[in-house]
Amino acid sequence: MTVLFNDPAEFAEDQFNGFLDLYSDRLRGVPGGAVAHRSETPQVAVVVGGGSGHYPAFCGIVGPGFATGAVVGNIFTSPSAAQVYSVAKAADQGKGVILTFGNYAGDNMNFGIAAERLRKEGIDTRIVVVTDDIASSPVESERRGIAGDFTVFKALGAAAAAGLDLDEVERVGRAANAATRSFGVAFSGCTMPGADAPLFSVPENHMGVGLGIHGEPGIRDEVLGSADELAKLLVGDLLNQAPARASSHVAVILNGLGTTKYEELFLVWNSVAPLLREAGLEIVEPEVGELVTSLDMGGISLTLMWLDKELEWLWSAETYTPAYRKQKSPLQGLRPAVRHNDEAEELDSIPVPSPAALPVATLVLDGLRVLASTMHVNETELGRIDAVAGDGDHGRGMVKGADAALASAERTAKATTAGPSYILRKAGQAWAAAAGGTSGVLWGAGLESAAAAIDDQGTSFDRGVIATAVHAFSTAITDLGRAKPGDKTIVDAMLPFVDGLELALMSGKDPAVAWASAAAEASAAAAATASLTPKLGRARPLAEKSIGTPDAGATSFGMIVTALEALAPATERTQS
Amino acid sequence: MTVLFNDPAEFAEDQFNGFLDLYSDRLRGVPGGAVAHRSETPQVAVVVGGGSGHYPAFCGIVGPGFATGAVVGNIFTSPSAAQVYSVAKAADQGKGVILTFGNYAGDNMNFGIAAERLRKEGIDTRIVVVTDDIASSPVESERRGIAGDFTVFKALGAAAAAGLDLDEVERVGRAANAATRSFGVAFSGCTMPGADAPLFSVPENHMGVGLGIHGEPGIRDEVLGSADELAKLLVGDLLNQAPARASSHVAVILNGLGTTKYEELFLVWNSVAPLLREAGLEIVEPEVGELVTSLDMGGISLTLMWLDKELEWLWSAETYTPAYRKQKSPLQGLRPAVRHNDEAEELDSIPVPSPAALPVATLVLDGLRVLASTMHVNETELGRIDAVAGDGDHGRGMVKGADAALASAERTAKATTAGPSYILRKAGQAWAAAAGGTSGVLWGAGLESAAAAIDDQGTSFDRGVIATAVHAFSTAITDLGRAKPGDKTIVDAMLPFVDGLELALMSGKDPAVAWASAAAEASAAAAATASLTPKLGRARPLAEKSIGTPDAGATSFGMIVTALEALAPATERTQS
Repeated sequence: MTVLFNDPAEFAEDQFNGFLDLYSDRLRGVPGGAVAHRSETPQVAVVVGGGSGHYPAFCGIVGPGFATGAVVGNIFTSPSAAQVYSVAKAADQGKGVILTFGNYAGDNMNFGIAAERLRKEGIDTRIVVVTDDIASSPVESERRGIAGDFTVFKALGAAAAAGLDLDEVERVGRAANAATRSFGVAFSGCTMPGADAPLFSVPENHMGVGLGIHGEPGIRDEVLGSADELAKLLVGDLLNQAPARASSHVAVILNGLGTTKYEELFLVWNSVAPLLREAGLEIVEPEVGELVTSLDMGGISLTLMWLDKELEWLWSAETYTPAYRKQKSPLQGLRPAVRHNDEAEELDSIPVPSPAALPVATLVLDGLRVLASTMHVNETELGRIDAVAGDGDHGRGMVKGADAALASAERTAKATTAGPSYILRKAGQAWAAAAGGTSGVLWGAGLESAAAAIDDQGTSFDRGVIATAVHAFSTAITDLGRAKPGDKTIVDAMLPFVDGLELALMSGKDPAVAWASAAAEASAAAAATASLTPKLGRARPLAEKSIGTPDAGATSFGMIVTALEALAPATERTQS
Repeated sequence: MTVLFNDPAEFAEDQFNGFLDLYSDRLRGVPGGAVAHRSETPQVAVVVGGGSGHYPAFCGIVGPGFATGAVVGNIFTSPSAAQVYSVAKAADQGKGVILTFGNYAGDNMNFGIAAERLRKEGIDTRIVVVTDDIASSPVESERRGIAGDFTVFKALGAAAAAGLDLDEVERVGRAANAATRSFGVAFSGCTMPGADAPLFSVPENHMGVGLGIHGEPGIRDEVLGSADELAKLLVGDLLNQAPARASSHVAVILNGLGTTKYEELFLVWNSVAPLLREAGLEIVEPEVGELVTSLDMGGISLTLMWLDKELEWLWSAETYTPAYRKQKSPLQGLRPAVRHNDEAEELDSIPVPSPAALPVATLVLDGLRVLASTMHVNETELGRIDAVAGDGDHGRGMVKGADAALASAERTAKATTAGPSYILRKAGQAWAAAAGGTSGVLWGAGLESAAAAIDDQGTSFDRGVIATAVHAFSTAITDLGRAKPGDKTIVDAMLPFVDGLELALMSGKDPAVAWASAAAEASAAAAATASLTPKLGRARPLAEKSIGTPDAGATSFGMIVTALEALAPATERTQS
């Protein structure tokens, strides 16, 4: 959703003025667009352009080694012929002008009219049209230009900066376009400034295949699958449409349209790169990011430029623009960091457990299973509670930690005859390592401390061991987290549980009964945190929003100790 | 909406593997994160970190002049102490380690535990916590870290790269944090991978003031105003919270959270920069873009770092990382392009109109008024029609063009006694210049051609002039656009209108009647384009979607000629 504007009708001008202010040390505004500051040596002027709404296309790539000027139209609208003429005239350095743009009717007309006018004034002007989108037509020359603008403009800009003459720069530009193919998908439409709805929408869990970059929907809607499946679609269709004289070196752009963020792009790259390599292609200086956008559209496109030696040289050439910079010197002479041996398994001397400890080890494993399944069942609910005044990651974090703890414990138990302390220690370490976050470090430290309170070579595992282990768990968490009762944290459920359990056990109650009553106290205390205002952590500044919702950490603790009641018969069995 | 993933639980790892693949020439993965390749000269290691979901924070700023290593946690989740330890150990070059991160409970614990472990192994380790968010607490030391991470990490990285020792780097980092303040607003929440709803939502036309960067909502919701008003809020609150020893030089970051795009950021910068300058501040190398994001959250934050000489040197220092690069040499020796005199008004010799031409000039002005108001009334509907298989800009473009044409015509008529031809020519030029796009160039050229068919010094303006002007309008458009009947363009409504009008006028019908019957034919023909499939332009690949919806250009033409019937009495008056 585009939400920021003053007068929507002046959006394109207003934002462009902001851009010009920002980069006034390296380019200047002229009527119709921006022109790069120039060096002493004149060069062919490469003037790119099209509508606004595609940043960094087109003004973001004005600078040394890339475009000499950019014509800036209204949002998604071709600039006028007068604008094109004005920018080209200011960009011209006496070596001729290349006008280059995506293949759209309005751009063809306006750039064409401007070219005629420039030629009449004696400025040699050539036109290079970009036609990379394989989805837009089976006929190459009729295809529209999308993210392939970037590779073609880059080749033109690098050739001009290298001092090639107008004929050569034009030839190189046409070669770059002939070698470039793009294909993309859209997940959601973009909203024009001031509009109250996006230009189009994609049905939920679908994608528009063959997107445009002007808010046009795709050619057809398909079910949206995994990132792997999407990578297969993009790579497969592009390789099917490879140019006739395709080389084995490719420049690659994985382009985000606006709302599809870097993390998602890296994720898809993780699937795309192996597919390209399996196809025998060598990937040259790939770019993954937002290079040709469409306001806040959700979508992704893949562009390949098959490289001969000349195009590879141009693709790799240095450039320095507001949005795209490539230099060789900063990386020269660097070498990889020394690899230290951090992946070696800790070689513990595993203590041989006593026969009495073995059933307790089984109990620990069962407990971890109950814990993990409880968190899986409640993941969404815990996330919802946490999101009211936090970041909503509590459910996810607990699942991740509990799963890792269980997996580590099961791996340990399978590999060797281990006692409950050893298994629980491994589980705690795995929890902290896998989950991260506040809950991860607290639960990890708690389980490790509980483990330390148990002796794998002990001969008796009575009610005292339960009390000691639970107490150690609790102390580790209060020591590390420094939360006090009433701060609206796990402590508010944990301390009533620990106190209740110790009291019940000391008064001689059956351990199962003691545990159940303490768990009930913990659950009640967790629910009661709803009335508290948070004192610590991220939740603090959102204190008011938090009132009425219980603390997620206290809630998950209550859920877990309640679920562990299911182990009661086993608990009784372990009494010697 | 985060829509791309394989296994949501493995999202953070999967995307990080993609990142590592992409930048394997300059950094390498270690358990828990990424470490930059190093130079021959050892330096203090600056290890940044936190959860994933903030790209380019944190792994995107690993490289020369910035972070030595980045610890990468799960989405919005602190990395574990084991991860921090692992990355720091690999990043250490024997000169000590700085661990630096935003002030969150989980990060404080995990980085703290890792620091203890590193110190035990004899690695001198210091911690610099970022506390820039003025909304999060009145107490500076209790504030959380948001986009100010970037300025503090930059100062630390530059100081370490410059060869400062551990004490000095730590001192500089604390100074940078003490000099940095941030404040932000959110427009929409972000969605965790695999989740089906955002972590929070902001009421429509509102903003969450005091956003977090982990999907936390703002501290309070306020009505969302214009970009100007937002700039005032951000600048005002920040300046109120300036550090005690504030200088007049400031580094500035206007940061987009994810869905708030570059164009919107530039627009806000256009309002922010003057406010800062009015406050007497000199802006040093501002950055406007996405530096610390929160997945696909909509929002914006403003960060100021008040610069003393040392911090200014560090802020301006060169760096080269995956997402952030600053070099001095590429811009050295450049000079602004020569300004050519393109803004000088064309000095037309305005022909003195004949007395008979004056009422026709009034009619042209009235016609342009009707045209503009018709487009205002129908802007939304035309946008909707165009969006079905196009980019939805037709209504906006027609309004922009018609407004510019009318304004130019009225300016001309006010400034001088001009005839209908001259006024119409200026109107056509203004339309093409202001509107751009396909419709802009066509309507502009059409009006200019119609103007050329009228003689301002003629003595008689009969029905023949109407026919000739309309014919010239039509011929210009068919010549330029090269569309044929049936291609689903303006031509499909325009040609029936021109033919109908000529036939009716030739058969002696009253001009008003002739116009009305031709306009009816045009409207019917426009409606009939619904059954056509587009042959030209952007709409072509979306041919199937287009069936059932009329062409926007034909529709607006029909609307305009129909509305011009209102001028009929005036038309009759012009007959001599």
